[in-house]
Amino acid sequence: MSTQQALTGSIIASSPDLGLLLEPVKDELVQVEKFLNSNLVDDSPFIEELLGQVFRAGGKRIRPALVLLTAKATSNPRGHAGRLHIILSVLTELIHTASLVHDDVLDSASLRRGQETVNRKFSDKLAVLTGDLLFAQASVCLSRLMNPVIVGIYGQVLGDLCAGEIRQMRQQFVVSTDWNAYTQKSIWKTASLFAAGTQSAPILNAAGDRVVSEMKSYGINLGVCFQIVDDLLDVTGNSHALGKAAGSDLTQGVITAPAMYVLERKDGPAQRLDHLIRSRAVTGSEGVDEALEIIRNNGGVECTVELARQYARRAREALTVLAPSQYRDSLDSLIDWLLIRTT
Amino acid sequence: MSTQQALTGSIIASSPDLGLLLEPVKDELVQVEKFLNSNLVDDSPFIEELLGQVFRAGGKRIRPALVLLTAKATSNPRGHAGRLHIILSVLTELIHTASLVHDDVLDSASLRRGQETVNRKFSDKLAVLTGDLLFAQASVCLSRLMNPVIVGIYGQVLGDLCAGEIRQMRQQFVVSTDWNAYTQKSIWKTASLFAAGTQSAPILNAAGDRVVSEMKSYGINLGVCFQIVDDLLDVTGNSHALGKAAGSDLTQGVITAPAMYVLERKDGPAQRLDHLIRSRAVTGSEGVDEALEIIRNNGGVECTVELARQYARRAREALTVLAPSQYRDSLDSLIDWLLIRTT
Repeated sequence: MSTQQALTGSIIASSPDLGLLLEPVKDELVQVEKFLNSNLVDDSPFIEELLGQVFRAGGKRIRPALVLLTAKATSNPRGHAGRLHIILSVLTELIHTASLVHDDVLDSASLRRGQETVNRKFSDKLAVLTGDLLFAQASVCLSRLMNPVIVGIYGQVLGDLCAGEIRQMRQQFVVSTDWNAYTQKSIWKTASLFAAGTQSAPILNAAGDRVVSEMKSYGINLGVCFQIVDDLLDVTGNSHALGKAAGSDLTQGVITAPAMYVLERKDGPAQRLDHLIRSRAVTGSEGVDEALEIIRNNGGVECTVELARQYARRAREALTVLAPSQYRDSLDSLIDWLLIRTT
Repeated sequence: MSTQQALTGSIIASSPDLGLLLEPVKDELVQVEKFLNSNLVDDSPFIEELLGQVFRAGGKRIRPALVLLTAKATSNPRGHAGRLHIILSVLTELIHTASLVHDDVLDSASLRRGQETVNRKFSDKLAVLTGDLLFAQASVCLSRLMNPVIVGIYGQVLGDLCAGEIRQMRQQFVVSTDWNAYTQKSIWKTASLFAAGTQSAPILNAAGDRVVSEMKSYGINLGVCFQIVDDLLDVTGNSHALGKAAGSDLTQGVITAPAMYVLERKDGPAQRLDHLIRSRAVTGSEGVDEALEIIRNNGGVECTVELARQYARRAREALTVLAPSQYRDSLDSLIDWLLIRTT
């Protein structure tokens, strides 16, 4: 079975198109896009230019879509997403984008989604401030929701994002097969923000506790699945989807699921991979290519696909709390879309 | 009259000691210090180490003190500051510190308050994340206040801090004597956070609207006064109080009140100063020394002292809304302390 087949399996038959999935929240996503570019801070045209630079690059807007679909799937009457849900969507994307802008400074990245990064177009200094500005815009959005519980949820998310990055930075080139730590890092880096959105949308609808907790579970599991697929793509090397070179995690000494599956076998290939990482040979192109080959030839990809599927199943189970609707269908199909993100 | 005399004038007679002024909130400041070092994000000892590195350097904790004194001056019965006011104090200092940590990365500073900066001790990357972490800790504090109005106030403050920095960066080496723009920048960079604290403390006490708005006015005017004194110190060169070399604003092309007073005279010295800035001669030690001499010898210092005094007077007027108490006395004496910050 090829990597591609392993990843997509039977799902490929129903290969969901993202545009089609997001059709039920199309109009709201247009409003989100406009709002993302609004200067909430002052009347300076330059700040609008900065926001334009950041958001013109586009992006799939998965997080706002999750918020809006969850909002519509849990509203009464079904299908309604009001002003507060638009703000919640914007806030979620602002936090995500702020962390990307800071990441780009840290990695000295020149391109993001095919557009020049702020650090490249202007300066590192302005890019740090732009990230801060996006966090500030998110805070203004948060305050407009007038909901202390949601303020608490997003406060924790900001902490999780930092904790995840700091932990990852400190674990560079540390060879570990601690699955709890790996999952925790995926929650911090990715799933926590997903879950904040899918949990807060029903809170704004005054939905019952069970709906809120199951939709939180959907967000966590979908987010972990998303991160696992992202880690997998770094190994399988679909650079079109990634927008970065294959093996860039390994090059930076970040050990993820595909490598961990091989490492925990403790056989010959595992020892060789261990050596390539510890000796930092993976920082060179020859070393990283050898490491990727070892991972691909020793089941790292297949095991990781199975892991992603486990989280996908849990995300799908959580959706059973919702009454049937086209919004629930989209949330369900988004799981499949994630799993075939390489195509 | 020497610079020093011009600045302190008759106030020197009553030269207030900061420790004495803060005596009424001494116990609460100990709690604030402990809270500042608490990891609110996860259970990682490394994050505690990072916070320790940042806060061990100390600092005057003016902002927490302002919150606590205002809390006690507006509480009923007088003299009470509870758990929420401690959190508000911590939150205010966290935001201030986060912006300092990011500033240090941007300026590649090695020392802050006599301690190694995070960027120096660890890396730029970790310092950007540490600033983000402090903002995250502030968000967690904000959520604990459970007060949507205060969330709105601090959301705006974050925006103001970014707007102020971005505006300043874009105005480097631009010779301007636009006093409105100068005052606005001082509000964004400094006064907005002061006022958030002095306004939110009475809000938490459910004080009346007039008390809240006058205490906001106190914070704004005290904050602008603080920034003006800071700008002045950069010219008079009391590097002990500053912790940086004299003329560092000019070197970076940042034009503040002392230079603006000379520039707007449009006479010979003004033209020379204008030339030194536009030609960027001020980036060299000879150029900046000449520019500082021109400012000092042409009334830049005296006029700026008078400007600071105007804002000090407005801050003092706002305090008349408070009933007499030792806390009001301290808030009043803090104004004097600011004015003689060079000693």
